[in-house]
Amino acid sequence: MIYLDNSATTQPHPEVLESYKKVADKFFANPSSVHRFGSEVERLLQQTRNQAAEWFGVQPKEVIFTSGGTEGNNMAIKGIALMHQSRGKHLITSQVEHPSVIEAFRAMESLGFDVTYLPVDSEGKVNPQDVSEAMREDTILVSIMSVNNELGTIQPIQEIGGIVNEYPKAFFHVDHVQGLGKIDVSLNKDHIDLCTVSGHKVHGLKGTGALLMKQEVLLFPLLHGGGQEQEKRAGTENLPGSVAFVKALRFLFEDQEKKRNHLNQLRESLWNELQEIEGVFINSPKNGAPHILNFSVPGFKPEVLIHTLSERDIYISTKSACSSKQPDVSAVLKACNVDRERTTSALRVSMSYTNTEEELMTFVQALKASIEQLQVTMGR
Amino acid sequence: MIYLDNSATTQPHPEVLESYKKVADKFFANPSSVHRFGSEVERLLQQTRNQAAEWFGVQPKEVIFTSGGTEGNNMAIKGIALMHQSRGKHLITSQVEHPSVIEAFRAMESLGFDVTYLPVDSEGKVNPQDVSEAMREDTILVSIMSVNNELGTIQPIQEIGGIVNEYPKAFFHVDHVQGLGKIDVSLNKDHIDLCTVSGHKVHGLKGTGALLMKQEVLLFPLLHGGGQEQEKRAGTENLPGSVAFVKALRFLFEDQEKKRNHLNQLRESLWNELQEIEGVFINSPKNGAPHILNFSVPGFKPEVLIHTLSERDIYISTKSACSSKQPDVSAVLKACNVDRERTTSALRVSMSYTNTEEELMTFVQALKASIEQLQVTMGR
Repeated sequence: MIYLDNSATTQPHPEVLESYKKVADKFFANPSSVHRFGSEVERLLQQTRNQAAEWFGVQPKEVIFTSGGTEGNNMAIKGIALMHQSRGKHLITSQVEHPSVIEAFRAMESLGFDVTYLPVDSEGKVNPQDVSEAMREDTILVSIMSVNNELGTIQPIQEIGGIVNEYPKAFFHVDHVQGLGKIDVSLNKDHIDLCTVSGHKVHGLKGTGALLMKQEVLLFPLLHGGGQEQEKRAGTENLPGSVAFVKALRFLFEDQEKKRNHLNQLRESLWNELQEIEGVFINSPKNGAPHILNFSVPGFKPEVLIHTLSERDIYISTKSACSSKQPDVSAVLKACNVDRERTTSALRVSMSYTNTEEELMTFVQALKASIEQLQVTMGR
Repeated sequence: MIYLDNSATTQPHPEVLESYKKVADKFFANPSSVHRFGSEVERLLQQTRNQAAEWFGVQPKEVIFTSGGTEGNNMAIKGIALMHQSRGKHLITSQVEHPSVIEAFRAMESLGFDVTYLPVDSEGKVNPQDVSEAMREDTILVSIMSVNNELGTIQPIQEIGGIVNEYPKAFFHVDHVQGLGKIDVSLNKDHIDLCTVSGHKVHGLKGTGALLMKQEVLLFPLLHGGGQEQEKRAGTENLPGSVAFVKALRFLFEDQEKKRNHLNQLRESLWNELQEIEGVFINSPKNGAPHILNFSVPGFKPEVLIHTLSERDIYISTKSACSSKQPDVSAVLKACNVDRERTTSALRVSMSYTNTEEELMTFVQALKASIEQLQVTMGR
């Protein structure tokens, strides 16, 4: 199998799974239980939180473990909006955010909030100037992703953070689900108040992740209850999941430079090969994130190409998995003002540090063969 | 180890963990991905949902997989309140609910909802007559647990369901986290619209569970995004977790009668033994759920007894894990109007079908020894 859909999800690292199993089996007590076994588990939870905090360069209390990226994004957006609505009801995001951000904002509109959806340029990039112009006295939240999940476009997070920071009433949230391990963001340097990360996109497990949030930030929790996670996210802690997440972070951040260089090399080789294929248009920006390459083959339904490649045990995607059941048009490419032929024929290759040059060359050959095969079928 | 804190959490069944690991490793694709691997995983998800639906006696579309009981309760309460607030803003619950219910209601009060917290009798039971009297034209939700997590009190769910059913604008939610497998509730027969269940209380995994909801029920999702789970709970599906949950359900429901009888026998033996100990008061109702026995030893701090038992590798709890970090008084026993001496000295034994008569007798001996040991220390 050649798996090139790593932005949809990744295969858990074998050691991640081992850690999960061990903790779930041996340290199963509820960390809130006052008996000795509960205290042992609570200590392990604290250690796990400390390790996560170290990898993220934040304080342990700033790590709120969640069930994943969608929860982190919803918790940040709804939590800030509901908690601080007395200060103002204006929210800002972009037109190219992940559905878990866009739909959370639409939901807040239905509750009476006013949302500005910023446009992007032809490469999917937000212009910081547009953020400046959209900021109002009643703006309480700006939410921009670090890396676009369809194109790999890197957003100017630091510049936007600087702008939001000028408005003491406004919080800055970054959906860092696609960026984690691929580009660096910093809560402090980039003036980020809340930052969503997810485990299953980095060889961790589904149902794991975290919302990193500065200690002084108050929000209306999505999950009220037993006071876990600094009273910001109730529910019996999924310690095995969090241990697994931290293990995945270790593999992600160890030799990080080497892994990023490897990804950059893979992407460059793929870029060069795709450029040579007639009828293929590359949609990703040249200086995008190292793991995503989006391209269109106008005239070919992406689903058909994907199925043809599936038969060769090669897996790539159209758009993002989370919006793949929607009609054909990519909302992201539409926002980029790319012509319709390209917005309806986009394919995404998303790589992991575990992929090899050889796999990518096999994919390129298979893609060429699939295009030719389909051209024959279509009688061209 | 003698683990008698099964209402806080349980040890995952070894086969549950095996299934989890296998699915996480082999079927890791995103079920929303359109390629063949994604479709395979989607089929497995559908099978898993079908199996869950069968165990619960509902339609597959009525199973919304969640990250656990706290999420299910918050999703039901906030989701119904926010979605149907134009019909009315009155909500009803009881004074003895789990913190994930009570705190969710308090949060809705902060958003302008009006909440009635029904009293209970000396055994923690809600009087259906009180529900009748509390119902108003603007009541949109009634939420009552099936089994109380501290006392094991079984609530008159069917009678309450019948009352709520007379009010077409009102929904009935049941927190069935402690009742699952121990007592039967039925969405149809008991007129339940939404029902919360959790995996880790029944030898499944932390971070798993479901909200069962009748197909026609609309709610404001906690998690907006990619449209997963019938657009009621977005986020990449935690398929390994759900497979593990269904596996746990199989072990729970297979030979269910035998398991319940076993639990009832354990509880009766324990009841008889505890009754004989001087200074011990049993707080649980005689006809409570088969797995919970709550008692007080006035004059002894429960934490001290728990620690003494911990030294003998025996684990029981005070109150519920989710409120165990709060001050000493049990809110549940307080609502029962039990005298203060007993509300501050309550202990809970919660059993699983995996516990044995021998373990319980060892616990009773250890409890007696601990009480004597402490009496000596305290110079009585």
